[in-house]
Amino acid sequence: MKQFVIIGLGRFGSSLGKELVQLGYEVLGIDKNEETVDDMSRVLTHVVAADATDEETLRALGVRNFDCGIVAIGDDIQSSILATIQLKDIGVKSVVAKALSELHGRVLEKLGVDRVIYPERDMGIRVAHQLVSPNLLDYIELSKDYTIAELAVPNCLNGKSLQDINTRARYGCSIVAINKPKGGVIIAPTANEVLAEKDVMVVIGTNKQIEQFEEAIVR
Amino acid sequence: MKQFVIIGLGRFGSSLGKELVQLGYEVLGIDKNEETVDDMSRVLTHVVAADATDEETLRALGVRNFDCGIVAIGDDIQSSILATIQLKDIGVKSVVAKALSELHGRVLEKLGVDRVIYPERDMGIRVAHQLVSPNLLDYIELSKDYTIAELAVPNCLNGKSLQDINTRARYGCSIVAINKPKGGVIIAPTANEVLAEKDVMVVIGTNKQIEQFEEAIVR
Amino acid sequence: MKQFVIIGLGRFGSSLGKELVQLGYEVLGIDKNEETVDDMSRVLTHVVAADATDEETLRALGVRNFDCGIVAIGDDIQSSILATIQLKDIGVKSVVAKALSELHGRVLEKLGVDRVIYPERDMGIRVAHQLVSPNLLDYIELSKDYTIAELAVPNCLNGKSLQDINTRARYGCSIVAINKPKGGVIIAPTANEVLAEKDVMVVIGTNKQIEQFEEAIVR
Amino acid sequence: MKQFVIIGLGRFGSSLGKELVQLGYEVLGIDKNEETVDDMSRVLTHVVAADATDEETLRALGVRNFDCGIVAIGDDIQSSILATIQLKDIGVKSVVAKALSELHGRVLEKLGVDRVIYPERDMGIRVAHQLVSPNLLDYIELSKDYTIAELAVPNCLNGKSLQDINTRARYGCSIVAINKPKGGVIIAPTANEVLAEKDVMVVIGTNKQIEQFEEAIVR
Amino acid sequence: MKQFVIIGLGRFGSSLGKELVQLGYEVLGIDKNEETVDDMSRVLTHVVAADATDEETLRALGVRNFDCGIVAIGDDIQSSILATIQLKDIGVKSVVAKALSELHGRVLEKLGVDRVIYPERDMGIRVAHQLVSPNLLDYIELSKDYTIAELAVPNCLNGKSLQDINTRARYGCSIVAINKPKGGVIIAPTANEVLAEKDVMVVIGTNKQIEQFEEAIVR
Amino acid sequence: MKQFVIIGLGRFGSSLGKELVQLGYEVLGIDKNEETVDDMSRVLTHVVAADATDEETLRALGVRNFDCGIVAIGDDIQSSILATIQLKDIGVKSVVAKALSELHGRVLEKLGVDRVIYPERDMGIRVAHQLVSPNLLDYIELSKDYTIAELAVPNCLNGKSLQDINTRARYGCSIVAINKPKGGVIIAPTANEVLAEKDVMVVIGTNKQIEQFEEAIVR
Amino acid sequence: MKQFVIIGLGRFGSSLGKELVQLGYEVLGIDKNEETVDDMSRVLTHVVAADATDEETLRALGVRNFDCGIVAIGDDIQSSILATIQLKDIGVKSVVAKALSELHGRVLEKLGVDRVIYPERDMGIRVAHQLVSPNLLDYIELSKDYTIAELAVPNCLNGKSLQDINTRARYGCSIVAINKPKGGVIIAPTANEVLAEKDVMVVIGTNKQIEQFEEAIVR
Amino acid sequence: MKQFVIIGLGRFGSSLGKELVQLGYEVLGIDKNEETVDDMSRVLTHVVAADATDEETLRALGVRNFDCGIVAIGDDIQSSILATIQLKDIGVKSVVAKALSELHGRVLEKLGVDRVIYPERDMGIRVAHQLVSPNLLDYIELSKDYTIAELAVPNCLNGKSLQDINTRARYGCSIVAINKPKGGVIIAPTANEVLAEKDVMVVIGTNKQIEQFEEAIVR
Repeated sequence: MKQFVIIGLGRFGSSLGKELVQLGYEVLGIDKNEETVDDMSRVLTHVVAADATDEETLRALGVRNFDCGIVAIGDDIQSSILATIQLKDIGVKSVVAKALSELHGRVLEKLGVDRVIYPERDMGIRVAHQLVSPNLLDYIELSKDYTIAELAVPNCLNGKSLQDINTRARYGCSIVAINKPKGGVIIAPTANEVLAEKDVMVVIGTNKQIEQFEEAIVR
Repeated sequence: MKQFVIIGLGRFGSSLGKELVQLGYEVLGIDKNEETVDDMSRVLTHVVAADATDEETLRALGVRNFDCGIVAIGDDIQSSILATIQLKDIGVKSVVAKALSELHGRVLEKLGVDRVIYPERDMGIRVAHQLVSPNLLDYIELSKDYTIAELAVPNCLNGKSLQDINTRARYGCSIVAINKPKGGVIIAPTANEVLAEKDVMVVIGTNKQIEQFEEAIVR
Repeated sequence: MKQFVIIGLGRFGSSLGKELVQLGYEVLGIDKNEETVDDMSRVLTHVVAADATDEETLRALGVRNFDCGIVAIGDDIQSSILATIQLKDIGVKSVVAKALSELHGRVLEKLGVDRVIYPERDMGIRVAHQLVSPNLLDYIELSKDYTIAELAVPNCLNGKSLQDINTRARYGCSIVAINKPKGGVIIAPTANEVLAEKDVMVVIGTNKQIEQFEEAIVR
Repeated sequence: MKQFVIIGLGRFGSSLGKELVQLGYEVLGIDKNEETVDDMSRVLTHVVAADATDEETLRALGVRNFDCGIVAIGDDIQSSILATIQLKDIGVKSVVAKALSELHGRVLEKLGVDRVIYPERDMGIRVAHQLVSPNLLDYIELSKDYTIAELAVPNCLNGKSLQDINTRARYGCSIVAINKPKGGVIIAPTANEVLAEKDVMVVIGTNKQIEQFEEAIVR
Repeated sequence: MKQFVIIGLGRFGSSLGKELVQLGYEVLGIDKNEETVDDMSRVLTHVVAADATDEETLRALGVRNFDCGIVAIGDDIQSSILATIQLKDIGVKSVVAKALSELHGRVLEKLGVDRVIYPERDMGIRVAHQLVSPNLLDYIELSKDYTIAELAVPNCLNGKSLQDINTRARYGCSIVAINKPKGGVIIAPTANEVLAEKDVMVVIGTNKQIEQFEEAIVR
Repeated sequence: MKQFVIIGLGRFGSSLGKELVQLGYEVLGIDKNEETVDDMSRVLTHVVAADATDEETLRALGVRNFDCGIVAIGDDIQSSILATIQLKDIGVKSVVAKALSELHGRVLEKLGVDRVIYPERDMGIRVAHQLVSPNLLDYIELSKDYTIAELAVPNCLNGKSLQDINTRARYGCSIVAINKPKGGVIIAPTANEVLAEKDVMVVIGTNKQIEQFEEAIVR
Repeated sequence: MKQFVIIGLGRFGSSLGKELVQLGYEVLGIDKNEETVDDMSRVLTHVVAADATDEETLRALGVRNFDCGIVAIGDDIQSSILATIQLKDIGVKSVVAKALSELHGRVLEKLGVDRVIYPERDMGIRVAHQLVSPNLLDYIELSKDYTIAELAVPNCLNGKSLQDINTRARYGCSIVAINKPKGGVIIAPTANEVLAEKDVMVVIGTNKQIEQFEEAIVR
Repeated sequence: MKQFVIIGLGRFGSSLGKELVQLGYEVLGIDKNEETVDDMSRVLTHVVAADATDEETLRALGVRNFDCGIVAIGDDIQSSILATIQLKDIGVKSVVAKALSELHGRVLEKLGVDRVIYPERDMGIRVAHQLVSPNLLDYIELSKDYTIAELAVPNCLNGKSLQDINTRARYGCSIVAINKPKGGVIIAPTANEVLAEKDVMVVIGTNKQIEQFEEAIVR
């Protein structure tokens, strides 16, 4: 079973650690702040109040034996960089680090970080898409052109069958799944399937196609 | 065309505003910090260095006429709350606000915010899933049980047709789309479709089914 | 017997708590500052040095069973708001909170506070009235037009009977009580009652009537 | 017409100044903080951003010609004391000052201040009384024993005449005025007067009598 | 034997206390700073680390029984004033206080302080006189016009008798004492007394006379 | 005419400079603080807001031509030392400096300062003597054993002639001058001279003799 | 002619820049602090007050065209790292950086810095050698074993010829040059050359040999 | 065996101390910072966390018996000066101190320091020389004109004998030693000696001669 060490237990690090534990993994959390560590002691497998830029501390904690290290330090670029090089040099196999700016991200990449994460920037982009499309619940960008969109079924489609809507012919995109709150998820629904207002549909198509479909159903 | 006002141009707010402008919308950005405002003046439609907790300022800027207000203030809970009540009282139709903690989120909800966003918490959860599934690129949680997963095609599936893999029969989940870097996106691929290592496949199924499929292809 | 919990033991909170105890009620005082808590331990029924924005702390103290919570936090709007929502959510029946500004007051009202108090603002108004009317000791605003005023009997009324003064006929207002330092309070005094310089008289009438009466006796 | 100078335009000072202006008096406001002074420039007759502990400043502003000086400095005991002695020495006829603690109040008295005000302490006492008596709107302490109370008429007295209630006989206290939202204020109401739920009644009596009357009508 | 309490053990207070102890008196020193108190524990009779603005502290230390209280607080006008009123109110017979400015001094006088001391101001004046008169070692201002000056005997008077110099006739001032390092102090020296370069002479006269004498012997 | 430059215009430096100007000398005052410099511009001959540890500044001001430099810097030992060495190296003839501690004083002496001054320490000693001798107004220490004391004539000596008192015979010390508020200063008074209560007498003698005389006349 | 850009004009950076200019090179100095930049404007070829972590600033200054960049930032590890990556990414051919700690140095190396400098550490080592060998003026470590030492000729060798001393035979090391203050430098001196006390000799040998020679001549 | 005391264990002081210990000497390290002291406890002979400006502390540690004191205090000029005078006054035979500026250095010299060190300034000069001469590894300045330079043998000299190069004839300077990584150090090499690219050669000559030689071999 993979073992994770998370350095920095702020909002991002603690949420990440909590989810990993819920997914069944062992997580060691390290943070300078004793109060933060106390709060997380009931959530993570192990927690330690320590300075993660100190090599001896990391060795004493056996950090070298962890499969993956995540540097999730909040707002201190210097500590983030120094902790990252310590994890790399001590021999942690895979290191992931959160960047506060593009410049910070470039340094992390030069240090050999496997993946640089920009939580606030990425979330800003995701929320922007949801704000402009009221029915859009979530989405995956498949390629520069193609998207999978999870859309709330609007009132105007209530009671209509997929045949009635005929997204394929009218907009070019396909409905590949429907989630009916009371009926469960229907994968590859047939043309007879009827939509209801609380349903959620999964649509695949080009950005253009999905955009036009969304605009049509907003009215 | 919808108009947006963003209060707080930190990492989250600026990324959100930039994306909205790229999607073709008008965005007014407000931040206390003059330097931040200068930096964003080339990105957003309008920017103003002002204190968004001051009612007169908001009135003078005509904020009441905006369709949607986003309170993206970084680390100051008090300013976030006071700016939020100003937007609500001034009559902005839809107000979205970023919360720093669950308690903060509860206050925002009581004030009538239409959507409370926790960027760092949500990104923590998303990254956790990606860390434990090396092939997982992105995903949408359709329901408590069902997920759409975007998976990198691993080396062990290179050259295999969908028929060979037969996810339906073996794991219960379906491959509903394939993105071939050089061949474009194939929606509802046929059983003859052959996978290559750089391809990306979109799989729908229960969490359990997808998890088992992922484990099988990691080996 | 009603039980009160006061959060914030500054000048306002400590004075309020002390008076409640003297009126015979049980009061639990909570303040972050240990020194403040020490000082109040001899005055209030119970005192605790704790952070009242922390839900667990409030639960551990059994705050949900108190009849009334008073958020009297000094100068920290954020803590005031967070403590207020905790009291409301934990189920305290009645919550009263001190506001530092009108905007702060509006947030508190949205959170469902039963009464918002502005001690300095209200005291400012009260003192203003006393400063412009040298004989005015205290007053109650009965309505927009009517006031009950407690007036010091000036030297020029010394030895005069109510009949001599005849406020009813001359100014339209009535003297409904007289407090004679050595003779006690006389309610609904007769026309023969004679005023002395150290007496205090209670007058009811319109603001205009009382103002004219006050001006007449200043001279 | 009396002229007032207020030193310190915080919550107490600004509220006091605003009320004095509304009562028709001239008010000069002095505060160190330029922003505060700007905000108050539309409210007070004159405002100046200056250090009121500096004798030359006070002379240049002609402060000696004011009838009354109010030292309403927020939280700085030293400035409060130094401004007070300047006002006294420069020859302002009457000086009123706000005290932050009893010790501060004693210094102000020694310096010859005409009246020392404790806004938060006094408001704490006043609110305490209102909290324990749900119907109590306001009150004047006539003496150690006697009080005039402004009480909301509770549901249980709705439709009852004063004769029915007979406070004189049952509790010893007298209803000397009734404020009927739609019928105006009735002074010295007759026994036939009937109370309604939104009415407010003014009661005079000993603390004991009023307390018993309040308790009776709460049930 | 007189007992002294000194509040504030900075440079002035500690020097004063040390001298009083060397003169044979009992001295209680009070200072907020524990380190300062430790340092003085070997010098003064008693030392306490405490806040001298707190009445209970002063009572517990029995300060009321001291003959003289000296408020020597360094740079905190507020603490100086509050400690002073506590000493006065608690009943210390005689109170002396150090002032940081003339305004501070005026407050102290209003509070009834027996003597206000301005160490730096007075020392500045004293040093000024010594700087302009190279031979002047010390002096007492007897009146506006008369001074007693302690002057170093310059080289030009070496070997001269008082008769030779004849200050009386030439300048109007008198040499009333001579201190000869190896011969002791000669009071009311005769005209035959001969001066040597290391001697010190005490001269009484008007400021003018002494000034002229000094100028004459500088050359 | 001698010219003085004073570095540091705090309480000691400004008092010293003011006195030098009143004695008719030219004084250049230098202080980092612009406000301080403004305040002193009406008092001293020249004032400059500058950093006196900067050699170029001192050269530009022509400081090398001054006769005497006084380093009166308040509380910053480093600046005091650096300004001192600059004055010495630039060639100011005589340098006097104020020390904050004995250690500071030792450094100043090593740097060749002509005279080190300890205003607070010296004033503490002087005040100590005055506090223990109620009649002692001022004094000069002539040697380890001899003192000249300026004593207020107490009530018990009122109307007595010097012959009556006979200090020479009884205590060994001599009264060498008397200052009579209305009669002027009498130098070398005769035995017939009569003392009055407001008079001041100058006494020379050993410490022991004067102490015994003081004790005798206190009773 | 080579061009240098120095980022950070503290003690190390300014000394380095000054020497480069004296050696005839063009140097651009960049520092955040305007005062520092002013001071260096007379020393370096060009100076700019700017934030060197900002890419646009560096581009605008044409930094990419410089041959060598030196990151000499004083005490801010974060700025040092960010400025370094900017210089590297912008294309400066050779980058040299000062490290504050070994960890900092490791990050700089990972970023591709051509040479990491530890001024204080290296100077500490150099001074240590000089302290233990009183005659040692300077030295070069040729290899782990061999050193070239510049030694002051001690009194005991005064007047002796190299033949007399015969270092080759006695200690194994060779005197390869002698610097005679009045006679100039003699390279490869003959055995007849006579040493004098103010001479300096250059010795090559193993550490052991030189150590023994030094010990012998100390006595 | 000599004993050293180092005051201030920053980068310079700790490096100096470490080297002294490795050279076999006893070193006592003193620093205010407890963490720093802990870190150095494994490196130096003795370490103490103490304030080195306090005379009693130094006496208690027996500092007077040390042969050499090094004041290596980082950035606090005042502490550096006060510690220096303490070491001098307590009787340490030899005192060396680090200066932060030329002015600071002048004070240290006046206090009698045996050697003033400017680590960052000197290192800046040394690095400047190395930057402009790519082959220059290290150097000793023998006199104003003569230098001993340690040069890397460049590719263009690979395989050439000293006879081929003939530095003596062509440039005037002499190669007095060669360090061959695999062959050891050759002192006074013969004309037949052949250079290889990784070799290092030691050259003595005038600055001009060496400069010309360097330029010739860079091409």
